[in-house]
Amino acid sequence: MALVVQKFGGTSMGTIDRIKNAAARTIAAHTEGNRVVVIVSAMSGETDRLLRLAREVTAVPDAREMDALAATGEQVASALMAIAIQAQGMRARSFLGHQMKVLTDSAFTKARIKAIDASRVQLALEEGEIVVVAGFQGVDEHGNITTLGRGGSDTSAVAIAAALDADVCEIFTDVDGVYTTDPNICPSAKKIDRISYEEMLELASLGAKVLQIRSVEMAMKYGVPVHVRSSFSSSSGTLVTHEGDLEQVVVTGVAYDKGEARVMLVGVRDQPGVVAEIFTALAAKSVSVDMIIQNVSVDPTGAKGAHTDVTFTVAKSDLARVRDVIDEIGRKVGAVDVRYDEDIVKVSVVGLGMRSHAGVAAKMFSILAEHGINIQAISTSEIKISCLVATKYTELAVRALHEGFQLGNAPADERTPAI
Amino acid sequence: MALVVQKFGGTSMGTIDRIKNAAARTIAAHTEGNRVVVIVSAMSGETDRLLRLAREVTAVPDAREMDALAATGEQVASALMAIAIQAQGMRARSFLGHQMKVLTDSAFTKARIKAIDASRVQLALEEGEIVVVAGFQGVDEHGNITTLGRGGSDTSAVAIAAALDADVCEIFTDVDGVYTTDPNICPSAKKIDRISYEEMLELASLGAKVLQIRSVEMAMKYGVPVHVRSSFSSSSGTLVTHEGDLEQVVVTGVAYDKGEARVMLVGVRDQPGVVAEIFTALAAKSVSVDMIIQNVSVDPTGAKGAHTDVTFTVAKSDLARVRDVIDEIGRKVGAVDVRYDEDIVKVSVVGLGMRSHAGVAAKMFSILAEHGINIQAISTSEIKISCLVATKYTELAVRALHEGFQLGNAPADERTPAI
Repeated sequence: MALVVQKFGGTSMGTIDRIKNAAARTIAAHTEGNRVVVIVSAMSGETDRLLRLAREVTAVPDAREMDALAATGEQVASALMAIAIQAQGMRARSFLGHQMKVLTDSAFTKARIKAIDASRVQLALEEGEIVVVAGFQGVDEHGNITTLGRGGSDTSAVAIAAALDADVCEIFTDVDGVYTTDPNICPSAKKIDRISYEEMLELASLGAKVLQIRSVEMAMKYGVPVHVRSSFSSSSGTLVTHEGDLEQVVVTGVAYDKGEARVMLVGVRDQPGVVAEIFTALAAKSVSVDMIIQNVSVDPTGAKGAHTDVTFTVAKSDLARVRDVIDEIGRKVGAVDVRYDEDIVKVSVVGLGMRSHAGVAAKMFSILAEHGINIQAISTSEIKISCLVATKYTELAVRALHEGFQLGNAPADERTPAI
Repeated sequence: MALVVQKFGGTSMGTIDRIKNAAARTIAAHTEGNRVVVIVSAMSGETDRLLRLAREVTAVPDAREMDALAATGEQVASALMAIAIQAQGMRARSFLGHQMKVLTDSAFTKARIKAIDASRVQLALEEGEIVVVAGFQGVDEHGNITTLGRGGSDTSAVAIAAALDADVCEIFTDVDGVYTTDPNICPSAKKIDRISYEEMLELASLGAKVLQIRSVEMAMKYGVPVHVRSSFSSSSGTLVTHEGDLEQVVVTGVAYDKGEARVMLVGVRDQPGVVAEIFTALAAKSVSVDMIIQNVSVDPTGAKGAHTDVTFTVAKSDLARVRDVIDEIGRKVGAVDVRYDEDIVKVSVVGLGMRSHAGVAAKMFSILAEHGINIQAISTSEIKISCLVATKYTELAVRALHEGFQLGNAPADERTPAI
């Protein structure tokens, strides 16, 4: 008898009718002979409503109390889901973070799971019940309620699937899977049938918001197969799994992220230790940096006193907070100027096959050049290449790369033939 | 250093501004040198909203899940209250039923408190924090969330005050105390400064809805002084305390209750055991009965086969559910007819002094007669007398009794001189 963990997000829980629909899907899985555990998010809009209440009281509410407040969203959803399953004739029981229990550290509003005690859930499953678990929440060793941060229900679902050694973790959402790129920009975008954890990680962190990044890391770590699928259709979605299970393709998808701003420290002293000094200072001020680009500066005379430019990106939402910090660091390392550019987008191609196929980067740059798109900065990893370009090129760049790497036209297993 | 327990009801927590106002009152009590524990109800309307959600799913939702659902109302309120206190510069921490912890039985939706472990709260108080506790909720021995039933936050407050051996339990509400009768009916109604637990019990159960009846029972049992006062003014309200502390008055207040319906079993066989049979059958069907009136039937011939009428009252809200049951019982005990009358009100006078002063009943009947009000049934206890009259006489009867017993005119300690 297989064990299936299902997770329904806020949109899938948005109305009573949708909750009934979700309940029917869990019952269907149970009727097919599986043991079923359901993880639920708060009804859409509810978490925001709760945070708004707290912010009406004060601008910076206490993190411990915020977690006690926000956790009620999933508590309501889990009770309603259990009631909906029962109303359709099945036995069900809800469990909260402190009942299950999901033990976390005490980092309120962004807690990390330390251990899961699944014994009560196991017992309920053995009694033939469908188990409903409130996602997003846990409890620390003192019994304080904690939450896992935005999108934490995905992490709850994968962690519980790992703890129960589930056969699959199904993430029900309002799209029918992971796409080769954003279908709103590129109508020829295709659903990806199977994708590796590594690729999914790159896509998740690059702005494809289907799965929360921590949940993918956790799925990879514990080898939990994740099935991303639509709550509104019965067709299969995208299976996120081990690389070994996949037919390897060179490029899997094209992602973009408008959330970053570019910072350039101009004319920094080119001495050993200066770059380290910059990023140590940024880290000390909790400035989270994504891309880092520094050109090797070649000074033919070999004289001391050469200068270089250091470029990096930070989240636009952080920029107001960190601008003074960066200006200060710029002065300390003797930068001639500090330039900020928010009018940029990061466009990336992702694919496991890059590791063994040379030329992906060259092809990406060529495609962008062919369309007259100037590349402002480049950053690469083993399985992705990212370019910063002006925001106005977002759609053009995504479409050109999607077409250039033939992601939309061929069947899934023939995507992006070797270059 | 005194320990003060304060309880704020749903109206006092109805908006963010009101929560801030309540927070200011707890801080004031703390600044005056008290240790302070605050018990909060859900924001007004919230519990109904939650129950409505569940009823949209199914007509009869599971009790365990309903409690997990409903308990979120107080969880939200306690977090917001803690945040509001912190925003005004004081340290505060919220505790839920399972954190405090308030151990109850497993009678979901109407659980009874079995024990309170106040050690964590004591610790927080010693650290100088204001402690906020979510009312209405507890946890059973299995860790399931339970609730204490409607108005249960009063009970939470008194139970916690008892467990902490608090000096006073202040119940903040939207009226400024307990009145000699309903001021909406009788503008000369006066606030009662001090009242005994026994009198308050009779007034509470007779429809003066200021304090939940179980909380008064518990306050009496553990000798917790309860101060009922307004959240919107700083004047003192009504102190509910031991009889011994009071200057005794004959009649303390006039109450009325439109919530009952009269049932009359006509022509029942007047044999030993028949009345017992009726009420045993009613109890077996969970029909809750309030007044019971049976006239002694005197049959001058002493012959077997005499008949009598048995009258009792049940809650109007129960009538639809229990009518078939009562009809059935009527047939079994050979009643000639079963008559129902919903067009009645129960008017009562309450006072400890009745015990030592004869003639209160006679005076009550005279006052009603003087105003042409026909009494349909009478029921008495040591400290109250209740009469059923037609609903249309409600206001007239209450005003006449309030005036007749001089409750509105004299200073509080001279109310209702000996008759």
